[in-house]
Amino acid sequence: MAPCLSFFFLFLFAFSAIPANSLPTFFPGAAYQSLIKQAKISKPKLPFKTHYFPQTLDHFTFQPKSSKLFYQKYLINSDYWRKGAPIFVYTGNEGNIEWFAANTGFMLDIAPKFKALLVFIEHRFYGKSMPFGKDSYQSAKTLGYLNSQQALADFAVLITSLKQNLSSEASPVVVFGGSYGGMLAAWFRLKYPHIAIGALASSAPILQFDKLIPWSSFYDAVSQDFKDVSLNCYQVIKGSWAELEAMSTQKQALAELSKTFRTCKSLHSTASARDWLWTAFVYTAMVNYPTKADFMKPLPAYPVQKIIDKILSGATKLSRAFAAASLYYNYSRSENCFKIEHEVDGHGLHGWDWQESMFPPSGFDYEEFAEQCQMKYGVSPRPHWITTEFGGERIQKVLKRFGSNIIFSNGMQDPWSRGGVLKNISSSIIALVTEKGAHHVDFRSATKKDPKWLIQLRKQEVEIIQKWLNEYYADL
Amino acid sequence: MAPCLSFFFLFLFAFSAIPANSLPTFFPGAAYQSLIKQAKISKPKLPFKTHYFPQTLDHFTFQPKSSKLFYQKYLINSDYWRKGAPIFVYTGNEGNIEWFAANTGFMLDIAPKFKALLVFIEHRFYGKSMPFGKDSYQSAKTLGYLNSQQALADFAVLITSLKQNLSSEASPVVVFGGSYGGMLAAWFRLKYPHIAIGALASSAPILQFDKLIPWSSFYDAVSQDFKDVSLNCYQVIKGSWAELEAMSTQKQALAELSKTFRTCKSLHSTASARDWLWTAFVYTAMVNYPTKADFMKPLPAYPVQKIIDKILSGATKLSRAFAAASLYYNYSRSENCFKIEHEVDGHGLHGWDWQESMFPPSGFDYEEFAEQCQMKYGVSPRPHWITTEFGGERIQKVLKRFGSNIIFSNGMQDPWSRGGVLKNISSSIIALVTEKGAHHVDFRSATKKDPKWLIQLRKQEVEIIQKWLNEYYADL
Repeated sequence: MAPCLSFFFLFLFAFSAIPANSLPTFFPGAAYQSLIKQAKISKPKLPFKTHYFPQTLDHFTFQPKSSKLFYQKYLINSDYWRKGAPIFVYTGNEGNIEWFAANTGFMLDIAPKFKALLVFIEHRFYGKSMPFGKDSYQSAKTLGYLNSQQALADFAVLITSLKQNLSSEASPVVVFGGSYGGMLAAWFRLKYPHIAIGALASSAPILQFDKLIPWSSFYDAVSQDFKDVSLNCYQVIKGSWAELEAMSTQKQALAELSKTFRTCKSLHSTASARDWLWTAFVYTAMVNYPTKADFMKPLPAYPVQKIIDKILSGATKLSRAFAAASLYYNYSRSENCFKIEHEVDGHGLHGWDWQESMFPPSGFDYEEFAEQCQMKYGVSPRPHWITTEFGGERIQKVLKRFGSNIIFSNGMQDPWSRGGVLKNISSSIIALVTEKGAHHVDFRSATKKDPKWLIQLRKQEVEIIQKWLNEYYADL
Repeated sequence: MAPCLSFFFLFLFAFSAIPANSLPTFFPGAAYQSLIKQAKISKPKLPFKTHYFPQTLDHFTFQPKSSKLFYQKYLINSDYWRKGAPIFVYTGNEGNIEWFAANTGFMLDIAPKFKALLVFIEHRFYGKSMPFGKDSYQSAKTLGYLNSQQALADFAVLITSLKQNLSSEASPVVVFGGSYGGMLAAWFRLKYPHIAIGALASSAPILQFDKLIPWSSFYDAVSQDFKDVSLNCYQVIKGSWAELEAMSTQKQALAELSKTFRTCKSLHSTASARDWLWTAFVYTAMVNYPTKADFMKPLPAYPVQKIIDKILSGATKLSRAFAAASLYYNYSRSENCFKIEHEVDGHGLHGWDWQESMFPPSGFDYEEFAEQCQMKYGVSPRPHWITTEFGGERIQKVLKRFGSNIIFSNGMQDPWSRGGVLKNISSSIIALVTEKGAHHVDFRSATKKDPKWLIQLRKQEVEIIQKWLNEYYADL
C-alpha cells in the first residue's frame, strides 16, 4: 500500500457525528496505539512452533542491496497434518503474528477435519520481522520496503520454499486473513493463483480506497450501530463533540478535562481526548462480538449495548461520553487512570500509520496532508496506486469474468463491511454477509455461546473450502 | 525478470548439434547485438505520434528516490478511433518501440474494424525510455530497476492515466505482445485483469523458465526445423562445430578463420565465429516466415530453405556452414565484410543480457555463472523468482480454474514455441497453434502472398477478440 496514510486516519475523518471542518489534518496514529497493551499482560500459550525464514528485502528491484536477507517469523502447527494434505496459511497483517494466531482460533478448530498444516506468517516490519532490526522505522529509506506488494511476494516465496522443504509440493494451499490480512489473502489469490487455490478473506475492505466508495460510509456505519440500539445514545455522543470543542477555547479547560477523563498525566490538547473517545466508539462497533472477547481490548458480549447502558449517567454529555468510553478502555478494571496521550502499542502496530492508504482525495486538505508526508518522510503518497495495482473499480464485472475461489465474509455491525464485497460476484467468488456479525467474527474460536447465524456462517465457509479442495484433488 | 541472464545465453547453451561441454560459461550477448543494425538503414515511416509519459521509477518501494520520474515513450495512432471504442495496447519488449510497431502491422490492419486506438508502449531501459539517461546501464544500482514486474506496473499506470486523459475510462483495453512482449501481455492480463479485458500473446514462451520444460527443447526444435528440410544440411551444420573446435588448437587458425569468414577485423577467438554461426541458424529458424520480411534481418520467404540451398557448395563443412550463415547476414548484399565481434545493436536491445532468466540450474555450471554475475554486477541471479511471481508449474490446472481471455498463439517452426502454451486451457484461455508458423508471424502485416493457414489464424484471433469485446459491452 502507499505509505504515509492510515486506516486510523480515516477513523478521525468522517465520523458522521463530527463536523468535518473540525478535524485534524494529520493524525499519526497515536490514539489507537494506546488501545492494546492488554495483550502483553495475558499472553495465552499458543499451540505453534516458531520459525524464521531468510527473506529477500526487495523482490522487485535487483540492486546489490535488494538481495539483503532479513528473518521473517512464522508459526507452524502440524498436529493434524499429514504430507499431501492441505496447508492453511494466515497472511499476517499489521501486528505481531501471535496476536493474529490467538484471534484466529477458527483455523485451529477446522484443522483436524482437513488434516491441515497451519502456518501463520508475520508481515514484514511488524513483530519480530524487522528488515533493519531496531532501525527499521528510522526513515523512508528503511520504511520504503514496507508495503503490500512486497508482503505478498514474501508470502509467495516463503510458502513455495516451505512446501519444498516439506517435500509436499502437491499440497493445496488456502490462504486466510482478516481485515487488512483479508485484503492480503484476497489479493494473494488474485496475484498468485498458482500458489493458493483459494482465499477466505474476512472483513476485508478491499474497496475502501481512492473513490471506490463514499468516504463517509465507514462512520455512517459506526453511527448506525449506535443509533440502532439507542437514538438517545447517538445524540449524547454527537452532542459531546460540541462540548469538547467549546472547552478548547476556555482557560483551565485542559486541567478540567484531565480530571473528567481521569488521565494519568495532564492533557496537552483537547484533540487527544477527542481521539480517545472516537477510538472507543469506533472499535466497540468493530468488535461488537456476540460473546466475550479480547481482540483489541477485553470486552463483554455485545459491547455496544454495554456502552450504551453506561451512557445514561453523568452531568454533561461529555462526561456521559467519557463514562461510556471508559467501559471500552477499562472493562477489566485494571486501570486507575488513562494514558490518553502517547501510549505504547502492545501488538506491534507501529508501521500502520506509514502504510495504509484510504485517504479521501477530496473533501479534505489532501495537498496539506501530502506536504506533511513529504516533510516527515521525504516521500509523497500515491493515492491511486492501490486501485491501479489491485483494482476495485467495477469489481463485480471484472471478477465476474476472471478469477475464482474467494470468500468475502462480512458482518454488517462492522463499519469496515461498507468497504467489503457484499454481493456474490460469480459462482466461486462468494460474499457471505451476516447482519449481526462484527469484525472477522467468523475467525474467532468457536464457543458454546455462539449464536446460530455464526455457527451457520462457519459451516458454509468449511463447505466451500472443502469444495475447492475436492476440485483440486480431482484435477491432480 | 531476474537479472543477469539471457535468452540468448540459452541459444548458446543447448543447440543439440553442439556438445554441451564446449560451451562458454558466460556470454554477454555480443553476438546477437551484431544482427540488426539493418533496421537503422531503412526506417519506414510509421503512422504514429510520439508521446512521453512521466513514469515512476520504482512502483514497489516508497523511498524518497523511488518516486523519481523518467520519461517513457509511447506511440499512438488514433486514425480509426472514437471515444468509448477499444484501446489496443502493445506491451513493448526488449528494443526500441518503433521496431515493434513496424513489425506488428496486424494491429494497424485490424484497427479500422474495431475503431481501435493503437498504443505502443516502450519498455523501460530500451529505446528512449531510459530512467537514468545515458547512465542507465552503468551498474546494478541503475539496472536494478529493469525487470518485468516494474514494466508491467509501468503499463498499468500509463494506461490508467491515458484513459483518464482521453476521458474514455469505459474503453476496453486489449493487450498485444510478441515473444517477451507476449509474456508481458499474458502476465498483464493475469496480474491486471481490471485494466486489460484480454491478451493476445504471440510466441510467448512463458514456460521457458526454471525447470518447467527440458532445457534442450529449444535447440531440439531448431535442429528439427533444419532436419525437416534436409538431413544433409543438419549433418553439415553438426559437423562444422567439430571442424571449428579442431581449428582452435591450430597455429594460424584465427587468421585462416578470419579469411574464411570474411571478417572486417581479425578474429580474437574461434568462439565468436561459433556464436555468429549459431545465431544465424537459430534466428533463421525463428523467423522462417512464409513471405519476405525484415524483422531481425532482411530475409526472403522461407529462409531456412534458402539457407539449405546455400549449404551445398564449399570445400569443408565449416566453409559450407559459413556460406549458409552469410545468407542470413547478407541477404541484402550490403556487406563487404562481416563484423563478427562487438557489433552495435540497432534495436536498442542492450539490456537484454541483464534481464532475461531462462537459465538451466542443472547440466551447466550454475555456480560459476552466478559468481560471474556477482562479479560483474554485484548481484546474484534469482533463478526461481519468475516461476514464483508468475507461475507456470501445472499451468493447465491452475488456469483451468482461474483467469480468462488470453490467446496464446504459436508457430511450430519457431523454437520458442516449445516453451509456449500449446493446448487450450479453458473455454477462454485458448492456444492457437500452426504447424508452419514462425516467431509471431501472425503479428506481421497482411500481404497478398500470405498462405491460407495464416489468414485463417488471424481471422480466428479477430473473432475471439470480438467476442471479448461483445461480452464487455454487454456487461456495461
